[in-house]
Amino acid sequence: MGSLSINNGNNEIHSNGFNGKIQSGGDQAQRRSCWYEEEIEENLRWSFALNRIIHTGATQYQDIQLLDTKPFGKALVIDGKLQSAEIDEFIYHECLVHPPLLHHPSAKSVFIMGGGEGSTAREILRHNTVQKVIMCDIDEEVVEFCKSYLVVNQEAFSDPRLELIINDARAELQSRAEKYDVIVGDLADPLEGGPCYKLYTKSFYECIVKPKLSQNGVFVTQAGPAGIFSHTEVFSCIYNTLKQVFKYVVPYSAHIPSYADTWGWVMASDSELMLKTEEFDLRVKQRMTGENRFLDGTTFLSASTLSKAVRNSLDSETHVYTEGGARFIYGHGKLN
Amino acid sequence: MGSLSINNGNNEIHSNGFNGKIQSGGDQAQRRSCWYEEEIEENLRWSFALNRIIHTGATQYQDIQLLDTKPFGKALVIDGKLQSAEIDEFIYHECLVHPPLLHHPSAKSVFIMGGGEGSTAREILRHNTVQKVIMCDIDEEVVEFCKSYLVVNQEAFSDPRLELIINDARAELQSRAEKYDVIVGDLADPLEGGPCYKLYTKSFYECIVKPKLSQNGVFVTQAGPAGIFSHTEVFSCIYNTLKQVFKYVVPYSAHIPSYADTWGWVMASDSELMLKTEEFDLRVKQRMTGENRFLDGTTFLSASTLSKAVRNSLDSETHVYTEGGARFIYGHGKLN
Amino acid sequence: MGSLSINNGNNEIHSNGFNGKIQSGGDQAQRRSCWYEEEIEENLRWSFALNRIIHTGATQYQDIQLLDTKPFGKALVIDGKLQSAEIDEFIYHECLVHPPLLHHPSAKSVFIMGGGEGSTAREILRHNTVQKVIMCDIDEEVVEFCKSYLVVNQEAFSDPRLELIINDARAELQSRAEKYDVIVGDLADPLEGGPCYKLYTKSFYECIVKPKLSQNGVFVTQAGPAGIFSHTEVFSCIYNTLKQVFKYVVPYSAHIPSYADTWGWVMASDSELMLKTEEFDLRVKQRMTGENRFLDGTTFLSASTLSKAVRNSLDSETHVYTEGGARFIYGHGKLN
Amino acid sequence: MGSLSINNGNNEIHSNGFNGKIQSGGDQAQRRSCWYEEEIEENLRWSFALNRIIHTGATQYQDIQLLDTKPFGKALVIDGKLQSAEIDEFIYHECLVHPPLLHHPSAKSVFIMGGGEGSTAREILRHNTVQKVIMCDIDEEVVEFCKSYLVVNQEAFSDPRLELIINDARAELQSRAEKYDVIVGDLADPLEGGPCYKLYTKSFYECIVKPKLSQNGVFVTQAGPAGIFSHTEVFSCIYNTLKQVFKYVVPYSAHIPSYADTWGWVMASDSELMLKTEEFDLRVKQRMTGENRFLDGTTFLSASTLSKAVRNSLDSETHVYTEGGARFIYGHGKLN
Repeated sequence: MGSLSINNGNNEIHSNGFNGKIQSGGDQAQRRSCWYEEEIEENLRWSFALNRIIHTGATQYQDIQLLDTKPFGKALVIDGKLQSAEIDEFIYHECLVHPPLLHHPSAKSVFIMGGGEGSTAREILRHNTVQKVIMCDIDEEVVEFCKSYLVVNQEAFSDPRLELIINDARAELQSRAEKYDVIVGDLADPLEGGPCYKLYTKSFYECIVKPKLSQNGVFVTQAGPAGIFSHTEVFSCIYNTLKQVFKYVVPYSAHIPSYADTWGWVMASDSELMLKTEEFDLRVKQRMTGENRFLDGTTFLSASTLSKAVRNSLDSETHVYTEGGARFIYGHGKLN
Repeated sequence: MGSLSINNGNNEIHSNGFNGKIQSGGDQAQRRSCWYEEEIEENLRWSFALNRIIHTGATQYQDIQLLDTKPFGKALVIDGKLQSAEIDEFIYHECLVHPPLLHHPSAKSVFIMGGGEGSTAREILRHNTVQKVIMCDIDEEVVEFCKSYLVVNQEAFSDPRLELIINDARAELQSRAEKYDVIVGDLADPLEGGPCYKLYTKSFYECIVKPKLSQNGVFVTQAGPAGIFSHTEVFSCIYNTLKQVFKYVVPYSAHIPSYADTWGWVMASDSELMLKTEEFDLRVKQRMTGENRFLDGTTFLSASTLSKAVRNSLDSETHVYTEGGARFIYGHGKLN
Repeated sequence: MGSLSINNGNNEIHSNGFNGKIQSGGDQAQRRSCWYEEEIEENLRWSFALNRIIHTGATQYQDIQLLDTKPFGKALVIDGKLQSAEIDEFIYHECLVHPPLLHHPSAKSVFIMGGGEGSTAREILRHNTVQKVIMCDIDEEVVEFCKSYLVVNQEAFSDPRLELIINDARAELQSRAEKYDVIVGDLADPLEGGPCYKLYTKSFYECIVKPKLSQNGVFVTQAGPAGIFSHTEVFSCIYNTLKQVFKYVVPYSAHIPSYADTWGWVMASDSELMLKTEEFDLRVKQRMTGENRFLDGTTFLSASTLSKAVRNSLDSETHVYTEGGARFIYGHGKLN
Repeated sequence: MGSLSINNGNNEIHSNGFNGKIQSGGDQAQRRSCWYEEEIEENLRWSFALNRIIHTGATQYQDIQLLDTKPFGKALVIDGKLQSAEIDEFIYHECLVHPPLLHHPSAKSVFIMGGGEGSTAREILRHNTVQKVIMCDIDEEVVEFCKSYLVVNQEAFSDPRLELIINDARAELQSRAEKYDVIVGDLADPLEGGPCYKLYTKSFYECIVKPKLSQNGVFVTQAGPAGIFSHTEVFSCIYNTLKQVFKYVVPYSAHIPSYADTWGWVMASDSELMLKTEEFDLRVKQRMTGENRFLDGTTFLSASTLSKAVRNSLDSETHVYTEGGARFIYGHGKLN
């Protein structure tokens, strides 16, 4: 490819008269000389060719970058970890939001723990049953950053049904009197000693989340990697911990290309979580504005039908997250 | 390091309430997740951590990028090859310019083939003997780009003694009547079939350059990599070719960190090129404004005293660049 | 981590008396200084830390490497592309083999196009209904290589039911009189102009494959990437092409971590391909020796239930592979 | 290039019949899919394409790898840092050894602190004046490893004039009664808290080294990076520390391609260290067997003539290494 840029007429006098050290490789080299590199695990790297580094900075809590990548479009990176990429964030956010809202008879109020990016609120606000959404994120600067940079969420941020609170999600939820039809956990993975660990424990679910769910209330949380090997990092424990607290618990997963892995979510409630494929699709039609790009009844059937290996370790998982003990995921080892 | 950013107080609630997939690694990861990568050779890579991609675009002739790199500051990249880096371009440009101008009894007029970046003109204009500088570069857009982005050269670009011409250096030189005290070749390396090959041949030196040198005139050219192995790529041939045309030829070299190699220059004249260390330093003091950061008489003595291996291959080099045949340097293989 | 290896007692005199240039970084650095790097796409890289390069060589047809990688164990690399990795090849091979064999009332004879690695034969031979397996691969050296290096397949290679033929799969199949209950396509993706393109066309399926299928015969082929974006490369066309030739066509997919993508397979027959989850599991129990690590009835239900986006493009796919025209996948651009 | 391997006849049926996921890229991809990567500094990486990982292991003190790299041949890597590469180690070792031995009127006995690799001894033993060489390295396994793997040094290891001692260099030197004509420091850089720091302090030079030098004795040490920027890391301090202890101190440097930097050495004595170029060459001819590949009188003149910037910081350096305080070099930051 690069060869073309050299062999054609232009290049016969290509940079004739430019200073030293020009060599061949032309546009190919140019197009691919800048890379974003992420460690998926200590021994596994994932690298995207870059168009631009749109923004890079640090908030009170975390480092933040907005990159323009060739393979995945604009990418939000927090503390060196990809949070969400333009071309496939819809998978993560549709899976986090729609199953709980559609399984609920008619979700009017929703509380988001985290979600500063705005995409979770955006998806929730597509439900016409929803009258009120509380988004509680601790990092005001990240929220402001996403407000101004993530065009796709700007409408959501200005939706009158959305109330934005800057606070610790746990403290905020505890302090509030009212209950919610759906509570969404859009938080960092439960690293022991990590920022969000306390928001994944049995006692948190029992004493803080469950009491704030109205009747038929549904709780959902992102649940970390759920691949055939990676699901044992936190997915199986989050599932098992919720099983101690709720009558009905539904784990599901989907492959997200930009994460280079299958991702997991867990939905939990004391009311049965059963929805036929057709009923799922009907509710999408009746309750939601716009088209889902990823999720429909059939897709959810597939996503909530786990493979043999994953089913088996979920069934045999004994670990429960408590204030005391946690499971590790990559990166944690570095902390001690 | 990453650990600190997690263990400290801030991070006890670090991103508490941000959406999924945040893990440890903190600022270190952030600081080093974006890289510029260059192939020095096919099997050798050189990578700089990036702060920003300041500009990226394509002119009629070449792709151009201005990067803000952590190890070397701002870096100008043409067609995926580093041209010059903020923190050490002074080595390249002091070596290209000052030896010929200082060896000349009193250089008044200088012709630059290429040099669009402006740094070569900047160094020439530091000589108070100089009354006129012609800079002839073919790529107007690159010149305009450098004018506006390379602050360090803006004064030079606006110096009344500088005349900027957009043209093919060979055609321009040929078409001009007057002669010059010094002619500077600040061009891409002589890749056979590459843009600048014709500007390194014996016939070009004989028929175009030499006739345009006034009495005591000195020609100098950048001469590609000059490392203990890399000097055979083009350095030794450029030296040997000039030896066919000029009575006195002086090759010299210096290590340029951002190039990951030792670089070479060759100075040629029909007047003897002899300057004692003290005389070199005296002329610097008498003729030049500002301080050299790299070059003085002693440094030039070292730079022009080549190591055994390099001396030997220069002495035994038999190849001469002609319109017919050339030596290859890395990258050329790609062209066919 | 590196710090520990310096601060502890041993290291107080750590390499005291070793030659220059030792610095910190200890085991971490050592553990991660060698990498295997693959371009998933032009702008997307996937890198594994290496323990060893077990073997590297070239056969008459292709370059071959056997690597010992940290994240995925032993990895077979052909022409710079990962073919199969120790820790997750079972996903690819269980999905390729078991659905067609289990859907068939009682598969006795199987023909493998390709499969030189031996893993496909290994999985087929786990079926007690199978009396004869023909494995036809063109590259004898690769087969010999895998025989000697891939311990996990050595039993299969020496199974009396296996007949190994070194030949072009198309020619071999055409030349044979007998028919097969199952024909398995374990071939390179259909790059136009690529080696295997001719083995994915409508005419090949119609004139060569279908006539060699006995009654109730089932054909299956690996069908390239099947991710939410990548499935349009070849998966949807292979599906649509088979739909032109067979009455019943079943596409399915699964995420394979070492491929950094979801992978696809398509099963086709003129007999209905319908198997209840329980029946699937029953046949596994009755017909197969050993335990599947990935596949059971429920897993296959999930794998064969495609997501909305993929279903939609499969339904709307109009392209058919013919000797004339093909779809591209990454890498093809390089060929011209 | 890759294209060829696809377009030619062979490849018209290239891997026809090999299992899925083969794509183009052929030999190029194969040739360059494995890389050794080193961090020269935190923000600067240096990567070599790999042929093989010949050996990798850990001794009591350090991790060790022997790699077969494409650009630099066999490379010895200790704790993730390149120690010496087949194609250019001669530069490091000729510079470390020959200047002190040639400046000495007639060096009979030499003590090497470190040098387990064997190359330093190999160069010393080329001097016919030398009757006895003590090599004292603490890491027996590294020495054994190099003995068996580094063919080029095997003759040296079996030279009757060489006495190999496994011990801490400081303790060994202190315990010995006899004096030496030349003492060579072939040790890790002086990281504060690092293994070798104590072997670079003023008190060590004053109380241990100097007393063990016979009359006209010369001490030499490798002195870390000596590039235009990197020389301030340790080179200038080592120079200044030796100046406190010895009457005559000669710093010199040379570019070593595989180190991606210019490297430094410092020679010190209480006898004058003056040798004319011709005298240097004469002694090489009279005293040494074999041909130097890098060093001769002229090369040493250039190597010992430092550039303006380096000369200036050496002259203005005030720091002295003491048991108390040290200078840092990259990697050290990690230790705390």
